[in-house]
Amino acid sequence: MSALIGKTGVVVRNIERADREAIDDLARHGVATVHEAQGRKGLLASNIRPIQQGASVAGSAVTVLVAPGDNWMFHVAVEQCQPGDILVVAPSSPCSDGYFGDLLATSLQARGVRALVIDGGVRDTHTLRQMGFPVWSAAVNAQGTVKETLGSVNLPLVCAGQVVNPGDVVVADDDGVVVVRRGEVAEVLAATRKRADAEETKRVRLANGELGLDIYDMRPRLAEKGLRYVDSLDELDG
Amino acid sequence: MSALIGKTGVVVRNIERADREAIDDLARHGVATVHEAQGRKGLLASNIRPIQQGASVAGSAVTVLVAPGDNWMFHVAVEQCQPGDILVVAPSSPCSDGYFGDLLATSLQARGVRALVIDGGVRDTHTLRQMGFPVWSAAVNAQGTVKETLGSVNLPLVCAGQVVNPGDVVVADDDGVVVVRRGEVAEVLAATRKRADAEETKRVRLANGELGLDIYDMRPRLAEKGLRYVDSLDELDG
Amino acid sequence: MSALIGKTGVVVRNIERADREAIDDLARHGVATVHEAQGRKGLLASNIRPIQQGASVAGSAVTVLVAPGDNWMFHVAVEQCQPGDILVVAPSSPCSDGYFGDLLATSLQARGVRALVIDGGVRDTHTLRQMGFPVWSAAVNAQGTVKETLGSVNLPLVCAGQVVNPGDVVVADDDGVVVVRRGEVAEVLAATRKRADAEETKRVRLANGELGLDIYDMRPRLAEKGLRYVDSLDELDG
Amino acid sequence: MSALIGKTGVVVRNIERADREAIDDLARHGVATVHEAQGRKGLLASNIRPIQQGASVAGSAVTVLVAPGDNWMFHVAVEQCQPGDILVVAPSSPCSDGYFGDLLATSLQARGVRALVIDGGVRDTHTLRQMGFPVWSAAVNAQGTVKETLGSVNLPLVCAGQVVNPGDVVVADDDGVVVVRRGEVAEVLAATRKRADAEETKRVRLANGELGLDIYDMRPRLAEKGLRYVDSLDELDG
Amino acid sequence: MSALIGKTGVVVRNIERADREAIDDLARHGVATVHEAQGRKGLLASNIRPIQQGASVAGSAVTVLVAPGDNWMFHVAVEQCQPGDILVVAPSSPCSDGYFGDLLATSLQARGVRALVIDGGVRDTHTLRQMGFPVWSAAVNAQGTVKETLGSVNLPLVCAGQVVNPGDVVVADDDGVVVVRRGEVAEVLAATRKRADAEETKRVRLANGELGLDIYDMRPRLAEKGLRYVDSLDELDG
Amino acid sequence: MSALIGKTGVVVRNIERADREAIDDLARHGVATVHEAQGRKGLLASNIRPIQQGASVAGSAVTVLVAPGDNWMFHVAVEQCQPGDILVVAPSSPCSDGYFGDLLATSLQARGVRALVIDGGVRDTHTLRQMGFPVWSAAVNAQGTVKETLGSVNLPLVCAGQVVNPGDVVVADDDGVVVVRRGEVAEVLAATRKRADAEETKRVRLANGELGLDIYDMRPRLAEKGLRYVDSLDELDG
Repeated sequence: MSALIGKTGVVVRNIERADREAIDDLARHGVATVHEAQGRKGLLASNIRPIQQGASVAGSAVTVLVAPGDNWMFHVAVEQCQPGDILVVAPSSPCSDGYFGDLLATSLQARGVRALVIDGGVRDTHTLRQMGFPVWSAAVNAQGTVKETLGSVNLPLVCAGQVVNPGDVVVADDDGVVVVRRGEVAEVLAATRKRADAEETKRVRLANGELGLDIYDMRPRLAEKGLRYVDSLDELDG
Repeated sequence: MSALIGKTGVVVRNIERADREAIDDLARHGVATVHEAQGRKGLLASNIRPIQQGASVAGSAVTVLVAPGDNWMFHVAVEQCQPGDILVVAPSSPCSDGYFGDLLATSLQARGVRALVIDGGVRDTHTLRQMGFPVWSAAVNAQGTVKETLGSVNLPLVCAGQVVNPGDVVVADDDGVVVVRRGEVAEVLAATRKRADAEETKRVRLANGELGLDIYDMRPRLAEKGLRYVDSLDELDG
Repeated sequence: MSALIGKTGVVVRNIERADREAIDDLARHGVATVHEAQGRKGLLASNIRPIQQGASVAGSAVTVLVAPGDNWMFHVAVEQCQPGDILVVAPSSPCSDGYFGDLLATSLQARGVRALVIDGGVRDTHTLRQMGFPVWSAAVNAQGTVKETLGSVNLPLVCAGQVVNPGDVVVADDDGVVVVRRGEVAEVLAATRKRADAEETKRVRLANGELGLDIYDMRPRLAEKGLRYVDSLDELDG
Repeated sequence: MSALIGKTGVVVRNIERADREAIDDLARHGVATVHEAQGRKGLLASNIRPIQQGASVAGSAVTVLVAPGDNWMFHVAVEQCQPGDILVVAPSSPCSDGYFGDLLATSLQARGVRALVIDGGVRDTHTLRQMGFPVWSAAVNAQGTVKETLGSVNLPLVCAGQVVNPGDVVVADDDGVVVVRRGEVAEVLAATRKRADAEETKRVRLANGELGLDIYDMRPRLAEKGLRYVDSLDELDG
Repeated sequence: MSALIGKTGVVVRNIERADREAIDDLARHGVATVHEAQGRKGLLASNIRPIQQGASVAGSAVTVLVAPGDNWMFHVAVEQCQPGDILVVAPSSPCSDGYFGDLLATSLQARGVRALVIDGGVRDTHTLRQMGFPVWSAAVNAQGTVKETLGSVNLPLVCAGQVVNPGDVVVADDDGVVVVRRGEVAEVLAATRKRADAEETKRVRLANGELGLDIYDMRPRLAEKGLRYVDSLDELDG
Repeated sequence: MSALIGKTGVVVRNIERADREAIDDLARHGVATVHEAQGRKGLLASNIRPIQQGASVAGSAVTVLVAPGDNWMFHVAVEQCQPGDILVVAPSSPCSDGYFGDLLATSLQARGVRALVIDGGVRDTHTLRQMGFPVWSAAVNAQGTVKETLGSVNLPLVCAGQVVNPGDVVVADDDGVVVVRRGEVAEVLAATRKRADAEETKRVRLANGELGLDIYDMRPRLAEKGLRYVDSLDELDG
């Protein structure tokens, strides 16, 4: 499948999507927990940041490869979107131009699309926040784009260091964006719930003043590694 | 005129300003629309970001060239400001020190200055937000500056990649900052209004579910460029 | 003492702390004023930014050196914290992983710790804001860390370009973070108050429209340096 | 296959490799030509730079996923290498530590490995150049690493924005690094040779003073797009 | 003239150039000296670096504005070049794609063009060095470009923070690139020669062990500023 | 001692230096080995890069704190230098201006100074290489500096993330720069020699084809951590 990455001039019409309820449940748990639960893989690079605060979403990826400074494929992609989708966009070479603004957001919102994730720039950010259309991007930039060069829609691509396949589930919140393989959603959701429960238990104990050193039984292993406690700096040379 | 860029030791007292109503009207339309309407020129580099959210202003540029780590010229510039102006500041070599804080903002506000745009750093940002004095800057930095070296006031300069002449109109909002030549304000405003009207029409159609593909009649040209629709990934090699 | 910087495998149990009232007073004056008052030293690099807006704190530094991608020492450090402390964390080589999240924050809050300052990444930022636990960090990143390699607690370290000794006072607000040597707190506080009073006086005069040029008597020195006023650009060559 | 990306704790012993002669032929044509010939895909991000000048190599990828600041997997990978291989290394989160130096290079050279490509740092660069072991890296850094955390060998990974599968062919020279899918080597080589021949023909014509405008017959399309020739700047407004 | 910056769709055929001998003389003195001699203005941002070492050139600027990821205008520009020119290229928004390689260099060399300065990327760097065609660029990148969008040739533009007018003189060496206004060449050359002579005199004195402190008579002013000499660190508090 | 960091207006005349033979021996072993031998501390940030290739030096630090864009203190520092010294310079806030060129290098060479290390910019780099005066810097930049603001000479400072005390030993080569505390030179040299011997032994074994896996007896611990060998990708899910 990796041979398809970077290919242009193709739109794939039918993609499989994961179960909607499972997707929504992943959104409730958030990026950090989902990322841990699936074994710390799938996290987009941390330069992808939300333009708003407090939004937490998940959806099925419709993938869009665009040429640098060219947003033509957005219009092609809109037609392929269904309610519950998230548009995941990567340029074929680095570009922080403002590919996306309030008109495209209006069009996506009309089709029930939940969010945009883009390793590039966006604009009209004040309006986007007012519309309640959440965006995670590498930049904010009023510089517009042209419509001259083909890219692709619904092929696998690399976005901010991660492979995203069409139909993979994307989870995004204030911490960033993580991708879950479509075929692993059930398994990751189960692990996520389990982890969230365990975290809740620990949170109560920590709030009561117990130490992680004791809850996680770290003292013996720290001692084994040679950690030394001294009473003051004066005990040390230098 | 470009021979004056970078010159120091000079203050120009009288500059021409554009019509105030036209300036205010540009502010209402925002950076992205104005930038498009004037043919995509004049946008400051996207590292210039607002320290606040939701502010949208326009004004006449009072330009200030400063030495790295030296804010002496700010005090000289204040005297040259009139109500409705925006201070546009660039260091003669890159510097992210905190050139500007609440005292200078108090002084500018007392003269009716509307905002600061600086390819450098600012500080006292919490107070600046409380005062309602909007700032677009390349950095936030508590590191102060000295007052030892002359720069210039009201000469043309390059700020974040754009030439700004004294009296040019600067428009700034959450998307960034764009400069409009003083002599082109009327023409750009007309184009801006026309574009805003066209966008409004499209917004309604897109909100009703029409596709950009159809509104902009893109399908024939996409086909001509060779865009191929397939039903699934399986139809493709690899 | 600088020979201890970078040493690992040691925890210092007892550190001296500055007077609590003095610390709280420094917080009230803010980073920019304190930094100026102590002669413009001790400011952390400006890539350390708050994850929240409007928080202003000060506290005694508990210093933590961590390996890249390894947050084991956080758990060791919690036990060494007292109410009023601020955790100051630096990786032994640059790393923007998400070292810290809501569970560790819960544990620190239970011990009365006031804030975290870290030259690395944090996660669970939405929850951290909801909890009211303020953080200044170099990055937001959901990428977690391991617990395999020893660092140190309460040794002097370099964090974002500044030496921080255990027990030094750390002041943090929207402008960034500044460190005040424990032995200089009284002196710096006095200078800070004096500076704040002077600023208040100037603020009133500037708000009334007086110019910094006159308040600071800058005109003679500007003239001496050769500053030339002209009536228009036309008077200049070019 | 993309579900394997990011997995740790696994070493794959047997990978398929492309034909050696085809690989060597790709090296002779260089990165820019190969990248064009395969339709402009597979190029690693341009922050991956050679530590030497003038080296041009190609080989079969042995892929190594490492933890940040941990080079344990290098030693595991060496055993999996054969003559003609190139080690392709990516950290599971960004890290510029010096993962690799002259000892590991000696070991790889003893096994006939041709080069290292790493989205991280290396050290002993003077010795590496003297040894004639070519390296492409994101950084030079004397900061060493630990051996505590498992990664993987010979799973697909993302290195500098590109998916690299074990056995894919990697081509590297002064311009950077490009990956060619193992299954596409023959086809890409044919296209590369064809392109190189065409370039040679054009080079001769251009050297003789013919213009690309004429060779590529660009004038009509430029005119159609509206390109206007004027005799001097004075003909333009402004 | 600044209203022309950013305009596209225009080629200016006739530009005025400075005296060839004066240009060659500027090249001999180098960037640092010329930059000082003209009052420290006109220096391109320091991210523009040579791809070779030891080249030192000067020439008349033929300016080229290109779209991001689009090198069409290079071909248009070649036709406008004369022996002794230097191509100065800026993208209309930031882009580090490889705009330029050995074929275009062959074409430029055939017309007697001396160098390329580009605020973007180049490729075929090994061949370019072998050809002896010097390049100063913001990046090396094998990623190619398309030919779809018009830019302009021989309009003023901003390249790496400096305005460059067609016909301005560009000087480039290992230290970077500086632009000299065409109308100021004679004056700048005179100042450059004077400065070079003065530097030579100082070089001899410094080589003989005289101190800058004495040659420039700095001691009184340092004392006036309050510089204090102490015999050892022990004399200072702390 | 850390309270002196950042102080300005002081020159310390007498500093203690380490044994010259020990210093020279450290230079022979290089940065990576010395850094390892002293327990991986003291390495300057990896943005400090040599302007030449193949130089390897060590010397006693004469420390210089400079204001941003101001190189006045260089002239003060020259007088404090002795044969065998290395100038270590840091700006009080980040600045990449060209603080240093061939005239200052001539002056330092006349006094027997061996090198410059600067967390800032330098210029005249072609001449510096011709003179054989080695420099490690954060930037190359023809932008000059002024002489208006005091810094300090021979106080401890933070340079590129490391504390450097006057008289500490600085070792620099193609890999970067490491600082060794003056009081630890003998001990670090002994450890360096021991490490170099051990490395030489390993180099011979590795060159003969032995594996690090066996030399370092890594197999049991890898197995214990759960490393799994499979024969092909097909054995894995996904």
